[in-house]
Amino acid sequence: MSVPGVAGDPGTDLLHHGDVEVRGAGLLDLAVNVHPHGPPRWLAQALRDSVEDVAAYPDARAAEVALARNHGRDPREVLATAGATEAFTLLARMRPWRRPVVVHPQFTEPHAALEQAGHRVEVVLTSGDHRLATAAVPEDADLVVLGNPTNPTGVLHPREDVLALTRPGRLVVVDEAFMDALPGEPSSLAGSPVEGVVVVRSLTKTWAIPGVRAGYLLGGPDDVDTLRAARPPWSFSAAACAAVLAISTPQGAAEQARRATELSDWSASMATQLRARGVEVVAGSAPFLLARLGEGTHRRLREVGVASRRCDTFPGLDDGWVRLAARPPATVAVLLRALEACGMRGCGP
Amino acid sequence: MSVPGVAGDPGTDLLHHGDVEVRGAGLLDLAVNVHPHGPPRWLAQALRDSVEDVAAYPDARAAEVALARNHGRDPREVLATAGATEAFTLLARMRPWRRPVVVHPQFTEPHAALEQAGHRVEVVLTSGDHRLATAAVPEDADLVVLGNPTNPTGVLHPREDVLALTRPGRLVVVDEAFMDALPGEPSSLAGSPVEGVVVVRSLTKTWAIPGVRAGYLLGGPDDVDTLRAARPPWSFSAAACAAVLAISTPQGAAEQARRATELSDWSASMATQLRARGVEVVAGSAPFLLARLGEGTHRRLREVGVASRRCDTFPGLDDGWVRLAARPPATVAVLLRALEACGMRGCGP
Repeated sequence: MSVPGVAGDPGTDLLHHGDVEVRGAGLLDLAVNVHPHGPPRWLAQALRDSVEDVAAYPDARAAEVALARNHGRDPREVLATAGATEAFTLLARMRPWRRPVVVHPQFTEPHAALEQAGHRVEVVLTSGDHRLATAAVPEDADLVVLGNPTNPTGVLHPREDVLALTRPGRLVVVDEAFMDALPGEPSSLAGSPVEGVVVVRSLTKTWAIPGVRAGYLLGGPDDVDTLRAARPPWSFSAAACAAVLAISTPQGAAEQARRATELSDWSASMATQLRARGVEVVAGSAPFLLARLGEGTHRRLREVGVASRRCDTFPGLDDGWVRLAARPPATVAVLLRALEACGMRGCGP
Repeated sequence: MSVPGVAGDPGTDLLHHGDVEVRGAGLLDLAVNVHPHGPPRWLAQALRDSVEDVAAYPDARAAEVALARNHGRDPREVLATAGATEAFTLLARMRPWRRPVVVHPQFTEPHAALEQAGHRVEVVLTSGDHRLATAAVPEDADLVVLGNPTNPTGVLHPREDVLALTRPGRLVVVDEAFMDALPGEPSSLAGSPVEGVVVVRSLTKTWAIPGVRAGYLLGGPDDVDTLRAARPPWSFSAAACAAVLAISTPQGAAEQARRATELSDWSASMATQLRARGVEVVAGSAPFLLARLGEGTHRRLREVGVASRRCDTFPGLDDGWVRLAARPPATVAVLLRALEACGMRGCGP
C-alpha cells in the first residue's frame, strides 16, 4: 500500500511499522515507541489473573464504564476496541466518506485502513515546522484524521487548532494514542464531548502492552452507537478488559502520571543532548523524537546495533529523518556512541 | 439486525448469542457451547506465561506455521484471526459479492458480518431433516457460507455434499468452528487444499478460551493473501499466539482427541436420555443437541434455573426448539429434573 509521490519517492510503504525494525534482530531498540520497562508488575499480574476469565465470552461493558469514568464521559460515548487499529478500521468503514483527508506525516494505519475500505485518501501535509495547517484542509472534507501528539513528529497541536477543524457534517478523528504519556494530557479532547469529534486512545504505549490489543474511542453517543454496531462481537478480549480495569484505579492513575513524567524527562534530556551535538530535533512533546541525522542514518545505525524508526515511509518525510523512542540515560549513551561511531551527522553522504 | 419473515416471526435477531443467556444470571449453563471444564491446566499456564511477551507487538507468523503443520498445509494457506468472527468480517469484505448465500439455520455471525458490510444476503434453508439441500443454492451464487458441523442443528454434512457446492468463480466458506470437537474430524476440509474453499476454525469451543479470541482460516494462497492484506496489523494477540503454540504439540493433540471423545460421549448419552423421554432430538455429531421441547421451553427452563440456547433467533427454526450444550452426566441429571419440573414436553401450551 503506497502513496505515490507524496514523500518524493516512488511509493511510501504505509504498512511499514516500527516493530519490524527490531524483530529478531538483536538490536538496541529505539524504534518502537513502547515504554521500555514493560508493564508495571500489578498490571502484568492482572493480566495473568485474567486467565481465570478466559472460559467466558468477554464482555467489554465494565471496561467501557471504567474508561468513561476516567475521562468524565458517559459510557455510551465510549467504545472499547482491540487496539487503536480496530478503531481506525471501524472509522474507515463508518460512512461512505466523500472526501477523507489524513494530515501527514502521521501514524499510517488510519490512512491504510481507509484505503483498505476502498476510499481514495487525500493527504494534507503539516507546515514546514510540522504545525497544523488548518487552512490546507479542504473545506468540504467530511473526514479529517490527525494525530495529537503527532507520530512521528512529536508535535502537540493546540486544542484550539484541532477544534478549528470541526464543521457541520464533518468527522474529525484525533489519534491520541500517545496522549497518556504527556503529563497532564494537555490539549486532549478525550474528556470533552465535542460534536463531530472522535478521539482514539490506546493502552499500548505507556503501559507497554502491545501484545494485548487494548484501545478505545470516545465520541458522540450516536457516532459511538454506529461504530458499536459494526464492531465484531467479543473483539475486546478478557486480557484487554482486565488491563482497562487495572489501570482505572488510583494506583493506575499514579503510575500513569509517573510514567508520563519519566518519559517526558527522558525525551527532553535526549533532545538536549542531540542538539548539543548539532542535531536538528523537532520541538515536540511526545515520548519520542524526530531527528534529522542525514541520509542513511537508519541503515548505518542498524550496522552498529541500534534500531531507529526509518521515516521515509511517512508521507512528508524522507530518509534524512529518524524517529527515536524516549529511553533512559543509559540507552541514550549507547545511542550517542553509536552516532559517533557512524560519523554522527555525517552518517549520510 | 434481522431477517424479516424467514423464521416466521417479524424479525430474527442475528445478533443474539448464547453468552447473553447466562451472563450474570446464575443459571446452570447449557446455552454456551464451550467445554464446561475450562482450558486444560497446561493451556492456562501457557496463557499466563504469555504475559511475558505482551511488551512486544504480537507476530502471528509462528502460530500460522504451527497451524499449517497441524493441518498439513502450507503456511501461506493459513491466516490467524482474532476469533472466527474476525475471519467472517474479513470474508464479508473480501470481494464485492454479487449474490452471497448463507445456508441456515447456522451460526448467525457470517450473515450479520455480510449485512454489516452492506450486502443483501440470500437465505437458503436446509431440508426438513436439516440436511444440505445442494440444489437449493442458486447456481450464480458467488459466495456460499455453511457450518459443518452446523450450529445449532449439530448435523455434519458429508464432505462430498460440501464439495458439490464448489463452482468456478464461487467461494465456499465452511465454518468448522466445532470440527475439533468431533473424534477424527470426519468431513473436515481443513487439511484439503480445494480450489474455491475457505475453512474457518476456532480454538474457542473445545479449548474453552472464548476470552482469548483465537481462530484462523485456511484457503488457497491467493485468497489468503487477499485476506491477510485486509487484516488489521497485530490483531492476533500474544495470548492467542501462545494458545496456538500450546495446542500444536503432542500434548495438545492428545487432549483434543480426549475432549472430542468426551464431548461426543456426553452428547450421545444426552440424546439417548432425551429420546427415552420422548423428546425429538436431531441426529447430529456436534458437542450440542438441537431438541424440540415445545414452545416456551427456553423461558420455563430459565424459571427453574437452567439456561438453554433459544432457537427462535436462528432463521429456519422457532421457539419450539432449544439447543443444549453437551454436558457431563451430573449436569444432564439436573436438566432432566428441570424438564420434569416444568412439565417435560408439556412445557409449551
